[in-house]
Amino acid sequence: MSSGRYAYDGLERVIHEKARLGILTSLLTRPEGLVFAELRDLVNLTDGNLSRHLKLLEQEGLLSIHKSFVNNRPQTLCQLTEAGRQRFLNYLQTLEQVIKDASKQTKTDNSPKPKPA
Amino acid sequence: MSSGRYAYDGLERVIHEKARLGILTSLLTRPEGLVFAELRDLVNLTDGNLSRHLKLLEQEGLLSIHKSFVNNRPQTLCQLTEAGRQRFLNYLQTLEQVIKDASKQTKTDNSPKPKPA
Repeated sequence: MSSGRYAYDGLERVIHEKARLGILTSLLTRPEGLVFAELRDLVNLTDGNLSRHLKLLEQEGLLSIHKSFVNNRPQTLCQLTEAGRQRFLNYLQTLEQVIKDASKQTKTDNSPKPKPA
Repeated sequence: MSSGRYAYDGLERVIHEKARLGILTSLLTRPEGLVFAELRDLVNLTDGNLSRHLKLLEQEGLLSIHKSFVNNRPQTLCQLTEAGRQRFLNYLQTLEQVIKDASKQTKTDNSPKPKPA
């Protein structure tokens, strides 16, 4: 067995947090961006929690936030940055490795059985 | 878009934490269990950190810890419980859904393009 085989260093903590994983997946599926209210409904977060996570993801350079007025109402549009897209795709590669590693056991169980005494 | 579509409630926090994800994947691949030192090398944790995570996973009923003496030296063997195996397999299903959702965008980008003016 090789050292660190299951350390999964590619699972960046800023991305791995459950709520942020949902936010980033939503945004990956919508390159044109999502407005705050749509995003909130997709990930089932309160306004306060969503704001907090968005701010952190923006600080980390993963997404950009555009504030504007549409029909005289304020609108917040969130979009993945290109760097964010790349970092998230790298993260997803490690996630696929976890599933691949785990499925080795779940698909075939051919570990040696103890011999009867 | 359906509400909570990307909420991923199946990502149990006790399992989702990066180090514990590595521990559980290691143990899933070894139904006969792993001794402390093997596990520590596979997940690249310090003794203290590994002990802390193992204790929590034992308290949560995900794994069992057996202490014994082998050749007069103390040995700690860790094994997934059957309940832990089931909970981890459920978690992995949600993880596969994340990758499926994310790959929708990364494989095909047929979002409507803005018409030229």
